[in-house]
Amino acid sequence: MRELSDIKEYYRSIYNIEHLMDICYWDQTTMMPENSFLARAEALSEAELIIHEKKTSQVIFDAVEKLLLDDNLDNITIMALLSAKKEIEQKRLLPISLVKEIKKITCQCEYSWVKNKEINNWQGFSKDLTQLVELIREKADILSEASGTSPYESLLNEYEPMMKTDMLDNLFEEIQMWLPGLAERFKSNSLNRNVNQKIPIRTQIKINKEMLSELGFDFSRGRLDVSAHPFCGGTRDDIRITNRYSDSNFMGGIYASLHEFGHSLYERNLPNEFLGMPVSYPCSIGIHESQSLFFEMCYGYSDSFINYLSKKTVKYGLNISASSIRKHLLQLKPNETRINTDEIHYLQHIYLRYLIEKDLINKNITVNDIPELWDELSLKLLGISSGKDHKNGCMQDIHWAAGFFGYFPCYMLGYIYASQIYKKIGDLNYEDTLLWLRKNIWLKGAFFSPVDIIESGTEEKISTLYARDMIIAKYENI
Amino acid sequence: MRELSDIKEYYRSIYNIEHLMDICYWDQTTMMPENSFLARAEALSEAELIIHEKKTSQVIFDAVEKLLLDDNLDNITIMALLSAKKEIEQKRLLPISLVKEIKKITCQCEYSWVKNKEINNWQGFSKDLTQLVELIREKADILSEASGTSPYESLLNEYEPMMKTDMLDNLFEEIQMWLPGLAERFKSNSLNRNVNQKIPIRTQIKINKEMLSELGFDFSRGRLDVSAHPFCGGTRDDIRITNRYSDSNFMGGIYASLHEFGHSLYERNLPNEFLGMPVSYPCSIGIHESQSLFFEMCYGYSDSFINYLSKKTVKYGLNISASSIRKHLLQLKPNETRINTDEIHYLQHIYLRYLIEKDLINKNITVNDIPELWDELSLKLLGISSGKDHKNGCMQDIHWAAGFFGYFPCYMLGYIYASQIYKKIGDLNYEDTLLWLRKNIWLKGAFFSPVDIIESGTEEKISTLYARDMIIAKYENI
Repeated sequence: MRELSDIKEYYRSIYNIEHLMDICYWDQTTMMPENSFLARAEALSEAELIIHEKKTSQVIFDAVEKLLLDDNLDNITIMALLSAKKEIEQKRLLPISLVKEIKKITCQCEYSWVKNKEINNWQGFSKDLTQLVELIREKADILSEASGTSPYESLLNEYEPMMKTDMLDNLFEEIQMWLPGLAERFKSNSLNRNVNQKIPIRTQIKINKEMLSELGFDFSRGRLDVSAHPFCGGTRDDIRITNRYSDSNFMGGIYASLHEFGHSLYERNLPNEFLGMPVSYPCSIGIHESQSLFFEMCYGYSDSFINYLSKKTVKYGLNISASSIRKHLLQLKPNETRINTDEIHYLQHIYLRYLIEKDLINKNITVNDIPELWDELSLKLLGISSGKDHKNGCMQDIHWAAGFFGYFPCYMLGYIYASQIYKKIGDLNYEDTLLWLRKNIWLKGAFFSPVDIIESGTEEKISTLYARDMIIAKYENI
Repeated sequence: MRELSDIKEYYRSIYNIEHLMDICYWDQTTMMPENSFLARAEALSEAELIIHEKKTSQVIFDAVEKLLLDDNLDNITIMALLSAKKEIEQKRLLPISLVKEIKKITCQCEYSWVKNKEINNWQGFSKDLTQLVELIREKADILSEASGTSPYESLLNEYEPMMKTDMLDNLFEEIQMWLPGLAERFKSNSLNRNVNQKIPIRTQIKINKEMLSELGFDFSRGRLDVSAHPFCGGTRDDIRITNRYSDSNFMGGIYASLHEFGHSLYERNLPNEFLGMPVSYPCSIGIHESQSLFFEMCYGYSDSFINYLSKKTVKYGLNISASSIRKHLLQLKPNETRINTDEIHYLQHIYLRYLIEKDLINKNITVNDIPELWDELSLKLLGISSGKDHKNGCMQDIHWAAGFFGYFPCYMLGYIYASQIYKKIGDLNYEDTLLWLRKNIWLKGAFFSPVDIIESGTEEKISTLYARDMIIAKYENI
């Protein structure tokens, strides 16, 4: 392997295996019969292992290193090779035995979470979580020793490259400066403003498909199906959005579709030149989430979209006025669960998790400290005590059970990135909005850091104040 | 790699990659949006290549050879290792460049077939087919030189191991001794005996699911979906049957389900001990087809099943009597296309293709000779001239375009194997039928040759006379 074309072909083969995995993940959630679970898990693990081996092989490392000595490379290629080299080095830090063990214990812990959450059994779950946290700490120690960052930051950077915990601390603290005031200011929005949204699920599916088509989702290279939780899966060549519907919550389905549509645009429009190499992938979870939240929380609240949606409801006999839609969307109702809370308190939910997981990974607290700390922070940040209701408290999310530590703050980042982008382009028409996002976000792949992408696109430093201003503009405009 | 357990783990990883491929093949036919075709084809090719590399690696060859020197192996393990060694040697005969080239030209040729069949353009298709046949001949020459068989037989043995063309010739000639007489004897069955089968497709799907459940198909590890052509895909842990329905051809759907159900039982019950090793796979296409034909053509014509089906039609308001079902099924109507012809003339269709493809691969004729030869044989064997109607003549099947030479005779073998089995166990009740098949066919995997499996199970030499007798019994019993 000597040429750039060889290296590209090598990574393209990784991309191709991922294609099969991505489709099978989608199948698992939408189509797979229940008792095929174990065989599928084993098959997917196998493919992950093959990819891990390919991504850490000596042959690719040597080829990349050697080619980097070539004086005639263009900048783009140099960036692609450097990030490939960094990925190889990073992945090689972890012994394969640890990778396999984490995989195994994660499966066990996810299963324990499902089982024990149902019966509110924190004791049962915490044993498995403790085992997983020990392994994750081991991993974090290895990564942090190599990078010179804190253990938590080294995990965070797997989801949000180059993000500093100092910066996160500052952003969260900035949010604390204005958020409680806004929650107080708009608390009258907590009045019950429900509207009749009853409409058969079959009709909802039709409307969601129609809407996605009209927004530009390409159904000749993608699908919309039903699953327990909405997600955007598949591969950039074959995007699989899923959603769930309730016959009395039409708008819940619509805004979930909008959210996943944002993810799908990003995936679809990532750069293809170095397919399978790190630069061709999403830049970070924060950026990914910024694209979904942009459509769900920014564009979705624009007059233009709300009028469009109102017309759709007329077409299908629901007849919800634009102003009723807006009133319904802008209810402030803090809820003890993250996925049922309102837009403003969502950020507090994230802060709560961030504070706990950072201390957990940095070994300032243990798994056993979580419930008490959760209750304390929940009372402070949300005004809600979770008490012994663990299944709606510290056991509500799958993230920790799945080994995702350092992931939660990306939701906050996604929200502030989205607000900052919306501040920049909120006045553009739909077509120009897509053009701007394509040029400034999607096509940049992982060539740059998340913060660089947002700051150079919006021509402003990262700040939480765009989020604050957007909230004020939205909640005042009822 | 030293131990049996290492070798088993190695092959299990192959099995796992195949799992992902199998699910993605199914997805391609049932779910995939049209424009994702190219990306999917590339991803599947990649996985095939990985499997080819794994199946021909020096490390596995050395491990198998070394372990075979061990004196303490049991017979089953020795058989598993010997057949693994044979597979490695066989696959190593072909240069990887030829494997890739065949793959590439096959894609091209299949595409050409789809496109040119539509417009009845033999000239256009024959160019691509000629290119493919040249490569397939090259492959056959390599294989036949190593095995000492004719080129055609070496291809045949990829689908039907250890089958001789001499034996095929004898079987086909034996069939010619009795088949034309039976076609003449039962030609009055060609009277129009259509019954009203009009029933909405949604109801048909419900009935087919209900029937499969009642026959024992495990929907907790399998699915039934819709595709253009019925097939049984997925993996033994997650079987994916598909079917197609017409609202005026209820029975067509039912018997296609029965056919695929037979395939599914075989796949589901293959031996699991050496997963991924050759012995764990279906023994041959002929045996596979014998299981589907057993359910479609033998068990499906039993009084017990036909009464069951008649009751189903009553339950769903169609009210077809058992005798009407039988009359409908037993119409003799030779058709110029294989998939639309009757049971008896189906065998003639296969013979026609066998004669042509054998001569083609053994270089006695060229691709350009096919249409004339087809017409001549069609007239002789079916009494139908295909003339210039190539799309219903020599272009009707995808097999040759897909590079499947040596595959067609397996349909005949499947039919005579099935008849021979039915002769042996036709009197058993359903439960005992499954037990017998499980013990004598399914669990034998590829530990033995197809002929050995049939002859030791039925305790009779292979013969076409069981097929003759079954036809007589069925067609006389109206």
